[in-house]
Amino acid sequence: MADQHEVSGTLTLPSLRWDEPPEGPVLVLLDQTRLPVEEAELVCTDVPALVQAIRTLAVRGAPLLGIAGAYGVALAAARGFDVDDAAEALAHARPTAVNLAYGVRRAAAAYRRAVADGADAQAAAAAALAEARAVHAEDVEASRRMAEHGRALLGELLPGGGYRILTHCNTGALVSGGQGTALAVALAAHRAGELRRLWVDETRPLLQGARLTAYEAARAGMAYTVLADGAAGSLFSAGEVDAVLIGADRIAADGAVANKIGSYPLAVLARYHRIPFIVVAPTSTADLQTEEGAAIEVEQRPGHEVTEFSLPHMWGAGAEAGAGIPVAPLGAHAYNPAFDVTPAELVTAIVTEAGVVSPVTRNGLAEVCSTSRWSKSRSGNGMMAE
Amino acid sequence: MADQHEVSGTLTLPSLRWDEPPEGPVLVLLDQTRLPVEEAELVCTDVPALVQAIRTLAVRGAPLLGIAGAYGVALAAARGFDVDDAAEALAHARPTAVNLAYGVRRAAAAYRRAVADGADAQAAAAAALAEARAVHAEDVEASRRMAEHGRALLGELLPGGGYRILTHCNTGALVSGGQGTALAVALAAHRAGELRRLWVDETRPLLQGARLTAYEAARAGMAYTVLADGAAGSLFSAGEVDAVLIGADRIAADGAVANKIGSYPLAVLARYHRIPFIVVAPTSTADLQTEEGAAIEVEQRPGHEVTEFSLPHMWGAGAEAGAGIPVAPLGAHAYNPAFDVTPAELVTAIVTEAGVVSPVTRNGLAEVCSTSRWSKSRSGNGMMAE
Repeated sequence: MADQHEVSGTLTLPSLRWDEPPEGPVLVLLDQTRLPVEEAELVCTDVPALVQAIRTLAVRGAPLLGIAGAYGVALAAARGFDVDDAAEALAHARPTAVNLAYGVRRAAAAYRRAVADGADAQAAAAAALAEARAVHAEDVEASRRMAEHGRALLGELLPGGGYRILTHCNTGALVSGGQGTALAVALAAHRAGELRRLWVDETRPLLQGARLTAYEAARAGMAYTVLADGAAGSLFSAGEVDAVLIGADRIAADGAVANKIGSYPLAVLARYHRIPFIVVAPTSTADLQTEEGAAIEVEQRPGHEVTEFSLPHMWGAGAEAGAGIPVAPLGAHAYNPAFDVTPAELVTAIVTEAGVVSPVTRNGLAEVCSTSRWSKSRSGNGMMAE
Repeated sequence: MADQHEVSGTLTLPSLRWDEPPEGPVLVLLDQTRLPVEEAELVCTDVPALVQAIRTLAVRGAPLLGIAGAYGVALAAARGFDVDDAAEALAHARPTAVNLAYGVRRAAAAYRRAVADGADAQAAAAAALAEARAVHAEDVEASRRMAEHGRALLGELLPGGGYRILTHCNTGALVSGGQGTALAVALAAHRAGELRRLWVDETRPLLQGARLTAYEAARAGMAYTVLADGAAGSLFSAGEVDAVLIGADRIAADGAVANKIGSYPLAVLARYHRIPFIVVAPTSTADLQTEEGAAIEVEQRPGHEVTEFSLPHMWGAGAEAGAGIPVAPLGAHAYNPAFDVTPAELVTAIVTEAGVVSPVTRNGLAEVCSTSRWSKSRSGNGMMAE
């Protein structure tokens, strides 16, 4: 039985799908390294192929990696490979991908429970697949709810529709089993005829906005325009932005939001121009153990991402210095933090699947998190913007 | 006699020099299309070669183009070509380069005056060369004075030295006969042991910061670091920026500053973090006929500068759509203004060769302009940041 999830509204091909042709089950991925130039599918018939796809970034984005990991375990089980070996290989395909390990753990645990309960190989494989589908469905549902809450919030803040929304990085269907986070809200507005323009920050250095958000916006038929990150200021000056919508990598207990580098300047510009600055992220992104924004550790990424130009298909198994086209003098040092931190006082609202936090306060955030299903398990399905 | 101007402090080779080898006079250019990858000189023995160098951006930057145009006329005269034809060809080598036409006019006028006064061909050619040297020397002197005034201002605003200066675009020796504008101030601070760090915005879309400012900073031995434009915000947050120094393309009578796109967000960030935002530009940049910032017309540049990656040596005679590596979906629309406008209330000071305007007011600006030598001739040697 082929996967029943509908093709995403922003993708011609789903970012990931389970299929069961006569030759046996497969996991089919939209090869993200080829975007936006071409849409190609990668068919994984076994776990080594999937591990390779994860390593080469053909499939990426934290929640999507979680889903891929879960399906990977189901694939190994369905094809009669050793599930423990497969789970081990998948969980370590990318070292820092928390969600990947989470998805793998859930499907592997379901498989082992079934085996422990006396299921035969086929039934145990079915249990793993059912769990993968559950991981997938939960992510779809979280996206759907964020889109709903976000659209309602826009309606309150900006009555009359016709929104001109500025976004940063890629927060759509390419990083999610569903429609993503911030881009899911923009898509919902678009479908309701309420989106006048999506302004897409190109998002240097890795250009997720130009490459991926623009791709999704084009597929969904949104009126969108790409811009260099530094050009956002003149859009605010010209009164061309009604709201900023971004995702989040992590939200501290005080409501400070870590997100892709370049988000914080947008928050400052939005404040200066009195424009709503809205963060869309599931409650699983809230890290209530981190007391405040200042305590969030910022990953420093390699300088060659800035000093050389490259695209994912130039990276091979990973971006390496010297693989790109030099744009700065040889030996140039670069400052390349992966994200910046926006304090709560600059955030108009945080939209989660469990509701909207606005104003953004420590108590408000804790309250929304306590009502979410994630608060019970806190099992780490942290959806990340990248 | 070879040109006597010293090699710039930020360049191993001068951006432009007049030379007189036994084979006859030549104009030698540092080929900017090869930077920062290699330092190559282009030797122009006639005006068509210089026109080609101007068209291919081997030589660029408004004041430098003015100097090149003047020397081009002197070259034609010295080699016995028709000076009127040469002046015509040079003045139109790039349609929007006001300074180019200005430099050409000055050298051609000097030549014609000499002829009218009965000079022979050799003496008239010498007059043209003397005028080209004067254009060059005036630019050197303006840079020197801006550097001096700017350094004094930094000393007042930030006693104790150890400056961490953030800059945007390229405002150094590559666009000037001297050391340029904002970068000239940073260089002066560096030479005085007062510069701790130069933060270099890469300056999308054309990467003048990464390619050219970093090149100059490296040659001058400054401690410099390149960053994606969007990363500046987190530097401010971390308290790592003491002042922002930028150039200007045009300054309206109310003190509003048009400069390379991405300047305005820095001004807003600087205000939010209470950091001085300093503009360095000669009084010739002030356009007192333009009453206010809102009246400055902003040039919209081709979208492919954003939606495709390319470098100058990929451009040939000019950047064309399709010549670069696509980074956005085919047909993506881009918003690509050449500059943005920062209102006077966000500018801490404007440093000119005639003194410092601070606070930036209509009267203050008019006063400094009235004391400058440019106010007498207003002949259009408008130094531009790009």
